[in-house]
Amino acid sequence: MQDSIEVEIKAKIENIKSIENQLIELKALFKEKTVEEDHYYQHPCRDFQKTDEALRIRISGDRYFVTYKGPKIDNDTKSRTELEIKIEDPESYKRLFEHLGFKEAGIVLKTRKTYTFRDCSIMLDSVNELGEFLEIECFGDFEQCKKSIFEIAALLKINKFERRSYFELIKNKKIIF
Amino acid sequence: MQDSIEVEIKAKIENIKSIENQLIELKALFKEKTVEEDHYYQHPCRDFQKTDEALRIRISGDRYFVTYKGPKIDNDTKSRTELEIKIEDPESYKRLFEHLGFKEAGIVLKTRKTYTFRDCSIMLDSVNELGEFLEIECFGDFEQCKKSIFEIAALLKINKFERRSYFELIKNKKIIF
Repeated sequence: MQDSIEVEIKAKIENIKSIENQLIELKALFKEKTVEEDHYYQHPCRDFQKTDEALRIRISGDRYFVTYKGPKIDNDTKSRTELEIKIEDPESYKRLFEHLGFKEAGIVLKTRKTYTFRDCSIMLDSVNELGEFLEIECFGDFEQCKKSIFEIAALLKINKFERRSYFELIKNKKIIF
Repeated sequence: MQDSIEVEIKAKIENIKSIENQLIELKALFKEKTVEEDHYYQHPCRDFQKTDEALRIRISGDRYFVTYKGPKIDNDTKSRTELEIKIEDPESYKRLFEHLGFKEAGIVLKTRKTYTFRDCSIMLDSVNELGEFLEIECFGDFEQCKKSIFEIAALLKINKFERRSYFELIKNKKIIF
């Protein structure tokens, strides 16, 4: 079994309602609305900010995940290796990580509406402390995914992208969009 | 939620059949026979041998667990903090640990017969490379558990104990029982 490559772009948006209306006109399929609480961890002996990795526990309603993200693999997108494991009991994993020397480094809270369109997922995020963002995500052949997500961005007239994660944006607090 | 304290003693035994017959005479309850494959991991920046900790993935038939064990907390037994998490897919966890810099340090293979007697579990282990062992284990009030397990050891006429883990015994290969 291989890890997945998550091919993804993100953009700060000013008018989330207008983007959502465009998605509805394009007949994108509404999938779900979730509230996501992401607990990010710092490695005991590796600076994840320098290595461009992330480890988090996601609490999304009554579903929980442990996710590892590897370094970004190109300069246009925020594509990277992603390993996501569905878990039952986030408290046990918090204790496991803490026993192993990982420290909780911060929490990102957001409300997410997910649409699917063509072979992509489109997420409309309202992120605490940061505002509103759009993410377009695709899993599969890297070049094909990249083509699909930039085509959708063009349809939505989005041409300025953000490669930093929400966690980095919140942590660094030198936010220029 | 608190981590459990696993109160446990272990002893090398010469005649596993004779011990098993004694357990049957004592009306200990046979619970299960399992084949256990334990994959032990080395921490990326902490020497678990020095810190007396362990992290492993256990494959026990079609059940899988991630287990963290903390340092031993007394000199008579091998009692320690234990955090055990039932998991679905051991391959994902191997990849997660490897992404985080943990390295597989060794595998312990054993056949285990588990009996329950009073408030304790009694395990008869045939361990690859090491031979046969008995473990008596109890979860709950530390002093009460310690009393129970040493009473059972006395009933079975066992008075010489081994505090090293199977993994330590195999790794060090300077085995004197």
